[in-house]
Amino acid sequence: MPKGTTLARAARVAEVAIDAPCGNRGVCGKCRLLATQGVGEVTEAEERLLLPRELSEGWRLACQATVEADAVVTLHSEAMQMALTTSDLTIEVKPNVRKRLARVALSTLQAPRADLDQLREALEPEGDGVCFPLPALRQLARVLRAGEDRVTLALTDGRCLAVEAGDTTGECYGMAFDIGTTTIVGALVDLRSGAQIGVASALNTQASFGADVISRIGYTMTDPEGLEVLQERVVGVLNDLTQSVMEQSGVKRERIYEATVVGNTCMHHLFLGLDPRSLAVVPYNPVVVDPLTVYANELGLRLAPQALVHVLPNIGGFVGADIVAGVLATGVHRRGEVRIFIDIGTNGEIVIGSRERLVCCSTAAGPAFEGAQITFGMRAAEGAIEHVHIGPDTVKLKVIGHTRPRGICGSGLIDVVAELLRVGLLDQTGRLLKAEQAREVVGEKLASRLFESSDGLAFSLFGGPEPVYVTQRDIRKLQLAKGAINAGIAILSRRLGIDPERDVQEVVLAGAFGSYVDPASTRAIGLIPPLPLSRLIAAGNTAGMGAKMALVSTDARAEAARIARAIEYIELSNEPDFQDRFADAMYFPDPAAIAALE
Amino acid sequence: MPKGTTLARAARVAEVAIDAPCGNRGVCGKCRLLATQGVGEVTEAEERLLLPRELSEGWRLACQATVEADAVVTLHSEAMQMALTTSDLTIEVKPNVRKRLARVALSTLQAPRADLDQLREALEPEGDGVCFPLPALRQLARVLRAGEDRVTLALTDGRCLAVEAGDTTGECYGMAFDIGTTTIVGALVDLRSGAQIGVASALNTQASFGADVISRIGYTMTDPEGLEVLQERVVGVLNDLTQSVMEQSGVKRERIYEATVVGNTCMHHLFLGLDPRSLAVVPYNPVVVDPLTVYANELGLRLAPQALVHVLPNIGGFVGADIVAGVLATGVHRRGEVRIFIDIGTNGEIVIGSRERLVCCSTAAGPAFEGAQITFGMRAAEGAIEHVHIGPDTVKLKVIGHTRPRGICGSGLIDVVAELLRVGLLDQTGRLLKAEQAREVVGEKLASRLFESSDGLAFSLFGGPEPVYVTQRDIRKLQLAKGAINAGIAILSRRLGIDPERDVQEVVLAGAFGSYVDPASTRAIGLIPPLPLSRLIAAGNTAGMGAKMALVSTDARAEAARIARAIEYIELSNEPDFQDRFADAMYFPDPAAIAALE
Repeated sequence: MPKGTTLARAARVAEVAIDAPCGNRGVCGKCRLLATQGVGEVTEAEERLLLPRELSEGWRLACQATVEADAVVTLHSEAMQMALTTSDLTIEVKPNVRKRLARVALSTLQAPRADLDQLREALEPEGDGVCFPLPALRQLARVLRAGEDRVTLALTDGRCLAVEAGDTTGECYGMAFDIGTTTIVGALVDLRSGAQIGVASALNTQASFGADVISRIGYTMTDPEGLEVLQERVVGVLNDLTQSVMEQSGVKRERIYEATVVGNTCMHHLFLGLDPRSLAVVPYNPVVVDPLTVYANELGLRLAPQALVHVLPNIGGFVGADIVAGVLATGVHRRGEVRIFIDIGTNGEIVIGSRERLVCCSTAAGPAFEGAQITFGMRAAEGAIEHVHIGPDTVKLKVIGHTRPRGICGSGLIDVVAELLRVGLLDQTGRLLKAEQAREVVGEKLASRLFESSDGLAFSLFGGPEPVYVTQRDIRKLQLAKGAINAGIAILSRRLGIDPERDVQEVVLAGAFGSYVDPASTRAIGLIPPLPLSRLIAAGNTAGMGAKMALVSTDARAEAARIARAIEYIELSNEPDFQDRFADAMYFPDPAAIAALE
Repeated sequence: MPKGTTLARAARVAEVAIDAPCGNRGVCGKCRLLATQGVGEVTEAEERLLLPRELSEGWRLACQATVEADAVVTLHSEAMQMALTTSDLTIEVKPNVRKRLARVALSTLQAPRADLDQLREALEPEGDGVCFPLPALRQLARVLRAGEDRVTLALTDGRCLAVEAGDTTGECYGMAFDIGTTTIVGALVDLRSGAQIGVASALNTQASFGADVISRIGYTMTDPEGLEVLQERVVGVLNDLTQSVMEQSGVKRERIYEATVVGNTCMHHLFLGLDPRSLAVVPYNPVVVDPLTVYANELGLRLAPQALVHVLPNIGGFVGADIVAGVLATGVHRRGEVRIFIDIGTNGEIVIGSRERLVCCSTAAGPAFEGAQITFGMRAAEGAIEHVHIGPDTVKLKVIGHTRPRGICGSGLIDVVAELLRVGLLDQTGRLLKAEQAREVVGEKLASRLFESSDGLAFSLFGGPEPVYVTQRDIRKLQLAKGAINAGIAILSRRLGIDPERDVQEVVLAGAFGSYVDPASTRAIGLIPPLPLSRLIAAGNTAGMGAKMALVSTDARAEAARIARAIEYIELSNEPDFQDRFADAMYFPDPAAIAALE
């Protein structure tokens, strides 16, 4: 992370959602967090928006404070709640695991009693209801034999996960994992307060067996040990992330008693070692959609010895636990008005509805939004053009890391297309103007950026010996992708009997994509319905947020199960008019109509 | 096993209990079993006691049929029930594990559903109540992907232990293990019928770390890996026994879904890897007495992948699950009249009572009854004198294997002492007569057997260059051992407010010792109260029998838990007059009074 990066950007790179209703402009003051070391000077905006007491405690605004050295940042549960209040949700910290201190009386020859019976007595009135599995009994014997009579138990729903020497009630942690096809994020959470005390992310090393889920499934079908290899890969990453947050925070492994896991259905199956091949062939059914609880050590996941892993439920073969977690985190299922929830990655999953009814689908959005198969496409990494503004004569680029541009990521591509539409260089069918026509529309300066590249007609973003440009073909790929999403929205809306333009209260753009992208541009290209900007919400990593909620609240976990059962999955290929809708949806909106919205 | 050995003896060596109320005399016909090959001709007694139909089916009497080649013998559940009818008990076969066949419908694109949901539907009406742990889901995916739609589930109490391809409902097995300090027995049982279909026994290889429990506990305290080593040892033996019965029967490992385990409290702790050191020091409390259920693979026990192991409950540090199983098998806890249950090994455990109340104790009977610390003491193996009769001039010996005697085992030692008392060569204080006195009492022939050995005054059993004799010191050791048992009976009786001679209905001699020993001799030396012979029952390996009952019947397993809670443990060293009672109990009874009993 270069010095001077704001914490908001750092968090974004780490896929940590920080609420920022004002778009990181230092206006709303909602992106507060605790940062006591390694950060730059307090800014004017912070002095205006934070109380002197808060400032002296180390509270800062993520959009203002910059990283100047190794920084330690605490996103408190309040921060998490804040993020959630955008959806009128609050979450009570009510974890599955709690700790209890007990003093075990010594047995006497007059009344010799088993250690466990002495412990149960010390645990009155709940003593008899607790099941002590063998590892806990072994620990109990070890602790008492070492001469310690104070023991701390990690208890979960009538089951003892650990027996520890002395008073360890202050140490009770869990991990929330969000397994993406590309990136995996792990957050360490204090289960007593709900506070996130560390976070780390890493690439999913399964990628060496294929960038997308289909090629990974293919690998499990061709190599007899493929499933095992991929299972070990993803668990290996989770172990690395755990190690990393342990080092960040000083928390010991044996104090991490629980984990939650979300991911798409394929990541879910590969993580659990469930044969995923049915996800790749008609009728694309998963092995299991129910929520599952397994022991971490059954999976090779290194947490406390008896730690439990709760895997959130899937909806179907194409809509996984990541979407369930996203709905949970954004509260779409709780509200009276209709919302559209869109999570775009390799696929685009869409949920539409309210507390009355929820429907969902998955669209083959294609990897265009992730920068793949685009001439200069790249991931949102240093050197990627993430935002584009076309002025009367010039093209302004915003490049990640403030370096010279190396390529363009999904949000940049959407911006370019939106801007080309706005200035008239691109027509509604998706055709770039020829240079001579363009000259009439936008003048010489901009028109000269149109040229015949080795990849066909192109618009130059950055010239010189290492240029970056967007081709007609790139635009066609984006059209296909946005058309698929848009057709999905149309079909789901019809199923609900609603008109998106009239009846939708909000569009929630989830995932890393949702955080990077300019909502106005998504609207300009017709990816989403034409609604006022105030109704377009970039919700951040909602999957990870849902995983954290399910970790700190058993109620939230139960809610996730209800969500998964409630959402109706619509298979688009079963819809007779899907192809027609898709063809319609590939056209771009009229820029004038969009401009009239504000 | 030499040719010509009766099946009754063969079963005894294998520690398989076969009921034989007539003492293997071919009179009662109760020791019937199925033996269709490798056995000798039908005897007169069998023709008298078995119906022609039974004979043609292969039913034989264990006390009559001899082994002439590799024999295959089936102890049917009827045989087990027969053994139990001596205690008016019958047991309904009602195992924890049952199998169910289901046909899983294929999912369709119109209604794509998870494999598990399809399976649950096929399992209606119980489908929703079954928990499918991860390994079962992995099996389900594998089976369905292989194109098989018929699956057989192994179900236990709402949990699926296995998902198998095709119809395997005919294969459902369990193992009952009886872990002795010296010997371990494993029986393979068909859980559908309750029939035992294979049995094997082996020495407990922990013995290389000490013959008795105290030295094994010592090893766990001196070697940091001692507990682990001993745990692995005993599990290794259990795995060998399983392998052996699998080979005997052709049953596959993955079809053995459950096991029950009994043993004394130290064997229990070592098997489970629980630190046993508290069993060796005041106040001798165990880590746990409750019944436990653990996964076989947690222990390294190789059965079906998700097999469960039910470990029966202990009563206390000195009275373990083997005694609970023995009480279960003999039904002492169910009857109105008072019974004495004695299981003699390295320790002597005693239970006295009825369905009204049960008390128990453990006595340091010492290893004399196992032949240890006796000049020519040996285990009940080939060459051991197991029975002794002193005639007017001669001494008749019964030697295991009909070879020349190499030593004497516990039952032989008790016989010798009983006979020496009867003929007057030993007085009630336990003193052997000198040769000159003896001559007057028993004549020259017998008196000449008394001689001054290198170990002190002795009575010769077998002369020549490799003699076998019993010394005064051996007799003293036996006195201490029987005195401890007898004092225990006295103290428990007082606690119950009963007079053993008047109020006890039966004395049940359990364990291998109970099978070998002549009940009349135990009475003659005052080990047990002076009751008519018809009230002395040799019950065989009641611990193993109880383990089998708990395996084939969940009711029996629940009953074992109730027994363990109901029995009151009396710590003899807490009784102020124990030493006095012990000193009194070392005297032998008056032979004339004993003779008058019949």
